[in-house]
Amino acid sequence: MTDLDALKEEVFRANTELVRLGLVTGTWGNASAVDRSRGLVVIKPSGVDYASMAPGDMAVVDLDGREIGTGLRPSSDTPTHLELYRAFDGIGGVVHTHSPHATMFAQASREIPCLGTTHADHFKGPVPVTRFLSEAEVRGEYERETGRLIVERFRGLDPLATPGVLVAGHAPFAWGAHAAAAVENSLVLERVAQLALGTLGLDAGIGALPEYIQEKHYRRKHGPDAYYGQGKIPPS
Amino acid sequence: MTDLDALKEEVFRANTELVRLGLVTGTWGNASAVDRSRGLVVIKPSGVDYASMAPGDMAVVDLDGREIGTGLRPSSDTPTHLELYRAFDGIGGVVHTHSPHATMFAQASREIPCLGTTHADHFKGPVPVTRFLSEAEVRGEYERETGRLIVERFRGLDPLATPGVLVAGHAPFAWGAHAAAAVENSLVLERVAQLALGTLGLDAGIGALPEYIQEKHYRRKHGPDAYYGQGKIPPS
Amino acid sequence: MTDLDALKEEVFRANTELVRLGLVTGTWGNASAVDRSRGLVVIKPSGVDYASMAPGDMAVVDLDGREIGTGLRPSSDTPTHLELYRAFDGIGGVVHTHSPHATMFAQASREIPCLGTTHADHFKGPVPVTRFLSEAEVRGEYERETGRLIVERFRGLDPLATPGVLVAGHAPFAWGAHAAAAVENSLVLERVAQLALGTLGLDAGIGALPEYIQEKHYRRKHGPDAYYGQGKIPPS
Amino acid sequence: MTDLDALKEEVFRANTELVRLGLVTGTWGNASAVDRSRGLVVIKPSGVDYASMAPGDMAVVDLDGREIGTGLRPSSDTPTHLELYRAFDGIGGVVHTHSPHATMFAQASREIPCLGTTHADHFKGPVPVTRFLSEAEVRGEYERETGRLIVERFRGLDPLATPGVLVAGHAPFAWGAHAAAAVENSLVLERVAQLALGTLGLDAGIGALPEYIQEKHYRRKHGPDAYYGQGKIPPS
Repeated sequence: MTDLDALKEEVFRANTELVRLGLVTGTWGNASAVDRSRGLVVIKPSGVDYASMAPGDMAVVDLDGREIGTGLRPSSDTPTHLELYRAFDGIGGVVHTHSPHATMFAQASREIPCLGTTHADHFKGPVPVTRFLSEAEVRGEYERETGRLIVERFRGLDPLATPGVLVAGHAPFAWGAHAAAAVENSLVLERVAQLALGTLGLDAGIGALPEYIQEKHYRRKHGPDAYYGQGKIPPS
Repeated sequence: MTDLDALKEEVFRANTELVRLGLVTGTWGNASAVDRSRGLVVIKPSGVDYASMAPGDMAVVDLDGREIGTGLRPSSDTPTHLELYRAFDGIGGVVHTHSPHATMFAQASREIPCLGTTHADHFKGPVPVTRFLSEAEVRGEYERETGRLIVERFRGLDPLATPGVLVAGHAPFAWGAHAAAAVENSLVLERVAQLALGTLGLDAGIGALPEYIQEKHYRRKHGPDAYYGQGKIPPS
Repeated sequence: MTDLDALKEEVFRANTELVRLGLVTGTWGNASAVDRSRGLVVIKPSGVDYASMAPGDMAVVDLDGREIGTGLRPSSDTPTHLELYRAFDGIGGVVHTHSPHATMFAQASREIPCLGTTHADHFKGPVPVTRFLSEAEVRGEYERETGRLIVERFRGLDPLATPGVLVAGHAPFAWGAHAAAAVENSLVLERVAQLALGTLGLDAGIGALPEYIQEKHYRRKHGPDAYYGQGKIPPS
Repeated sequence: MTDLDALKEEVFRANTELVRLGLVTGTWGNASAVDRSRGLVVIKPSGVDYASMAPGDMAVVDLDGREIGTGLRPSSDTPTHLELYRAFDGIGGVVHTHSPHATMFAQASREIPCLGTTHADHFKGPVPVTRFLSEAEVRGEYERETGRLIVERFRGLDPLATPGVLVAGHAPFAWGAHAAAAVENSLVLERVAQLALGTLGLDAGIGALPEYIQEKHYRRKHGPDAYYGQGKIPPS
């Protein structure tokens, strides 16, 4: 199996996982992965039913969006994915869903505050929300402008520390080191949105989790002092 | 298999799909399709359990509601379906459910505002809500008046651009080019209702998605410039 | 198979159906049925896991609560069921669950108003809520007093037209002509509670569905003019 | 099979049960059990996928946290479990989840009031919430301090009568006589949180269930006068 076939298999699995996890309804979602050495991106084909999809159906484009080979047409959101791959060096996979609770925050143009350790374990600080695209941006290269909008929002933020965003009036995008990590981050984004919605229902004016607890949990799983998992020795 | 048998098979599949998608509880729902060339409508039989239903059980009526053949009695909502087929030329299938979130808006006599692109991709503008039927209308041909009520609400609206409605104090109806499209639109209607309920919980005073984004998303999937799916080439 | 074996089979199926429908968690629920000709009630055994239950495990008591045979002990809620069988002549089955949305209304000591046709199709008027039991009643024959409390609440109401109740601070009870009908009514009660909760979230001050629509929908399925199902001919 | 193998099997089953019951997402949860005669605790390994776990993968530590044998590393939450085993003599199993509704209350730093008999049947009084850990405690032995925080909160409370707690800004912990009982208590904790959230949505100012009803239900299932289940004879 060539590297490209392996990447198609990985992207296929990531897209079917989105369905299994209940993150997508119908065809509302897509996952992609990049092979930076060859400058190729593999992504879900546009408007194809998940049930009838096979690994070989995954579309291939270069980082400028040129379709490679004679496969199915790539997702109409491909230009958004490409902008993220071009701007965020460390990422290997991107996922877009309309998962319900994250989309509720996106529709309300409201960031998801860090209200607990579930959030702090995976996202550094709030999950940011973009501005709305201008009329000119929408009339232009809409999907590409959506990618630029996300990149603009991440000026001064680390996309690897905060691996997801809410596009105002639209829905979430998430990413990670590879396609499976992007899927996991989009699942976590949906769960922390659900938790935040219920927490705000109990106390609309609640503040963020104390900074020192946010930092502790983030570092417990990430960075040089991480000790979660089978890698390192915990302090106690 | 005759055309009528094929239509019965299609309507049977549409009704069972409503159960699989979690859009109906018990027998609270029905799907139908029309064969305009022969003036026949095939619809779920009345009060029959989905589990025990077979394609041959689908009821057949003409567009005036006369039962054809010796099958089971048609759904008591049949006169509503017939009004829609008579008034909305372009539609080939109709679905009625009591799906929870759409029914919550119907019970609140509240239209579903277009708060995001999930909505804009499928419904042009808000999902409208009807007035309540008058006592005279209810005491008359109730189910037929319900159909007339929907048609009245759609004066000045395009039923193909906005393929669904909320009947005040009752529940949603959705339609499409054929039975399967009507099922998909009733699923989308339920999902956008769920998203709107959560969004309004975060910001009760939120306004609609900017008009130019609504228009962009609707056109991305519909009309001459559509480029979603495997048909056309995207701009970027 | 004797009549009693048949009734045990029916009650067993009703109890397992409660699990399949997601109306019970753990052992929080019970279904029973009465054989009025012999004055016997068959009911779920107390605190037994649904997964390990067999038809033969169903407990049998007479209408005074005396255990018949050497089977498992009846549900601790049996005295409540018996009060209902003694007071409501027309009922053949009783179901108790802690289904989430109905229990939320019970915990809030709030009746479920009739806000739509889903409710009106199955329950005449609001689903009533009882008062709290007094300390003396609780210290006495608690489960029996719970049954008397429900009967007290139904003075002036028709238990067959409104086949369910919310016990304040506790949970719902539902009943019907037989065990399966009681199960269906407890499912409907949960669904209308879910719909009402969401509707009140959209409009806390909403009024009941117009009386003439409530009456129409109730009569469409019940009483001499019923035309829902395969029995009668619809007006149109 | 040695006692230790049996305990590993029990802890493995408890951890997989958490997934089956929908109480954990990804690896966000862990169950443990103690063998007090030998001073050993068996617990889920850290950051291991539930799907690929086997009984032999369960980690073993002594009550001071020293890893026994050459198995996988114990959960990073192990020091919290150990504090609970050391302080609460009667408990044999501990479970930690981020179950959604219980976590919403934890994130809101809000105890779960006893609003109904579902709660009263399993938890005596409200489910308590801890304070936030101080910065010094977080910078120290964080997981161990979390255990001490819970023990501090239970001064004057009976951990067997109230077998669970909400850690502020984090999530719930529950416990019981053995691992399976701890799993059941964490399921009940999630359900009563869900019920309380909906009840508070209907009446934000609602008070607790009358004390005499709380006491009756708790005693019906617990203590010398218990008559729920197959053990004792009910009063009526």
